[in-house]
Formats: sequence, C-alpha cells, structure tokens
Amino acid sequence: MTKIFQPFSTMYEFDSGALNPQGKLISRRLSDMSSMYQDSEAVQALLNDNPLIYEVYNVEVPENEEHIQHCTTILYPGKVGSEFFMTKGHYHEIINRAEIYFCLKGKGLLIMQTKEGEFSSLEMEPGTIAYVPPYWAHRTVNTGDETFVFFAAYPGDAGHDYGLIETEGFVKAVMEQAEKYALVANPSYRKENEIGE
Amino acid sequence: MTKIFQPFSTMYEFDSGALNPQGKLISRRLSDMSSMYQDSEAVQALLNDNPLIYEVYNVEVPENEEHIQHCTTILYPGKVGSEFFMTKGHYHEIINRAEIYFCLKGKGLLIMQTKEGEFSSLEMEPGTIAYVPPYWAHRTVNTGDETFVFFAAYPGDAGHDYGLIETEGFVKAVMEQAEKYALVANPSYRKENEIGE
Repeated sequence: MTKIFQPFSTMYEFDSGALNPQGKLISRRLSDMSSMYQDSEAVQALLNDNPLIYEVYNVEVPENEEHIQHCTTILYPGKVGSEFFMTKGHYHEIINRAEIYFCLKGKGLLIMQTKEGEFSSLEMEPGTIAYVPPYWAHRTVNTGDETFVFFAAYPGDAGHDYGLIETEGFVKAVMEQAEKYALVANPSYRKENEIGE
Repeated sequence: MTKIFQPFSTMYEFDSGALNPQGKLISRRLSDMSSMYQDSEAVQALLNDNPLIYEVYNVEVPENEEHIQHCTTILYPGKVGSEFFMTKGHYHEIINRAEIYFCLKGKGLLIMQTKEGEFSSLEMEPGTIAYVPPYWAHRTVNTGDETFVFFAAYPGDAGHDYGLIETEGFVKAVMEQAEKYALVANPSYRKENEIGE
C-alpha cells in the first residue's frame, strides 16, 4: 500500500462559525451572484458597497468516493430589496449524491429542487439536521437577523454544478413579507362575563 | 425515474445528545462488550449492574454510495477498573471509507489503527471535527466525567466490520493514570525575600 492518509482534526469556532485551520476559504460578495437576485434596481444600489453575502470554510480532503467533504458556511443577514441573502445553490456534479446540513447558529431556510421541477424546503435552526437527498439542488437562505451557520458533509466525489441554477434559478425565491401572523380579537373571550353583568 | 428520496430533517437535542425522531437506536451495555476490557475481575464485579456504556441514534437512509449515513453517539462517563468507557470500535466493511466526527459535548479520545498496526489518536472537545481517513479502524473513549457526545457522518456504502477488533482489540488501551500534572514547590519563589530578612 502507498502511504495512507493520516488522521487530523479541525476546530470549529462556536462564536464565529469559522474553522481553524481555515482550509480553503470561499468568500461570495454580491458581485459574485448579482444576477441571481430578483430586484435588479436593488442590486445596482448595493453594488457600490458590494456586501459580503457568505463564506465557506472547506476542509481539504481528496475528491473521491473514499472521502467525506466537509465545511462550515457563514451566511450573513441582509436583503437585496426584499429578498434575503442566500447562497448560489447548486446540483452535485455527480447528481445522485446526498448532503447533510447541521445548523449550529441562527436560522434559515434550505430550499431544494429537482431537474424535473419538484420543489421542497426545510426550516433550519440550531440542532436541525437537514438531509438533501440524491438529485436535489440546494440553496440556503438567511431568514433571520443574525449570522446563520451550518456544518455540511457530502460524499468526496460529489462535486459542484452551478450552471443550471445560474441560468434558470430556483422555482421559488425567499422574500420578506409582512408578519406571518396577526393578533386578532378572540370573539368568545370574556363574552360570558359581559353577558352576566 | 422512479420516485426519488424526499428531503427531511431530524432535530438534535443539545442537552441530551439524542435525535428526534430517534431513528434506529443502538444501546450497548457492558455485557455486549465485556471481553473488550482489560481487567476481567473489574468486568465481573460490574456485570451485575451491567451499566449502559453508550447509545447511538442513527438516521435511517439507504446504505449505498448515493447517501450519507449520520448519527449521534452518547458515550457515558465511567471506568471498568481503570479503563475508560469506550465504544466497540470497527473498521468499515468497505475499508477505504472515511468518517467525520464532530464533538458537541464533553471530552474524549478518538483512537485509530490500520490493519498494518499503525496507531493514532486525537483529543476531542466541543468543536473538534476529527477526520478518520480511509483504512483506519476507530473507537471513541470518554476520558471526562460528563457525557461525551459527537455527531458522525460517513459514506452510505461504508458498512461496519467489528470482527477483527473483537478478536484482536486495539494496539493501545486508554487507562486512567495519576494526575497528569503535580503541584511542586517553586524553589526560587520568595527566596530573595528570605535571604533579605
């Protein structure tokens, strides 16, 4: 046998979501994905500042079926118009490869779709372990107002295919709306008392 | 395409280390691994109580190369004689498959070895992401006095091979020793003052 791969460890920093050593660090600013947001005027207005949308700390291991790729993603809070900051999203290059997301901080939405147009989403909060099955493209969205951080693991040979998402986008966009609930009067509360008086 | 696997999520409970839903739960008591400890008299003395050594909460996904197996392990604190509670340990059935451990609670030691007798260990504490490369058998040991909990992910097709570890054991055992440090007098502290008096 040729010299085999040796054990090692990486430290996850709970406060920041970063890894130490940092491995291969990918930083995505708005200019790296400006065409992916719905509101092009809002994009233009923000491009001067060119905000940092997310960072991925990748532990570097060989890209083959023996290994497990793993990384942490720090997705910052913010919006482009009323659309929340999000990752680019991708299929795996070997499309029938799954992925696991373990949310460690903040909150967000994981949106997924197949090439046949099937769409699905999962809410994530600390402790949520989300499973992206084989064949599903995946994108994460920060729906909160703090940093959204998750750990990801996927087969070493999976690879990334951004092409179709760059041209077609996802079936749905995640937009801020008015409060999802409203406080309305309960018509029966204290009614009896009123009648009794 | 036949009906494809649908996305889903599982909740990790930070206090206990358990999963919800629990998936396939494996519980190992001393009687399940009594021959693996060094001190057979200590084993006999404990077998009446037959303590729970560890539990594994397994999320159930298909066992093939498309998927990622994932689970949490709760390894309880305790000793058999002076040997710390530990997992059985195993090679993967497909031996060149890696595994990732993400420590979430407590502290422990991950010991590893190859069939050629090479041995390695990594200390784990919350935030440690340990990488078990292809070809390495792996066992975890609770070296602390609280519950040691970690999340694991490994290729869907890896499988488990306990046989060789059951017959041969690991190269090294993890035993409690006297404190790793001792408080000894500093010969120069306040010496000048004494001289000065």
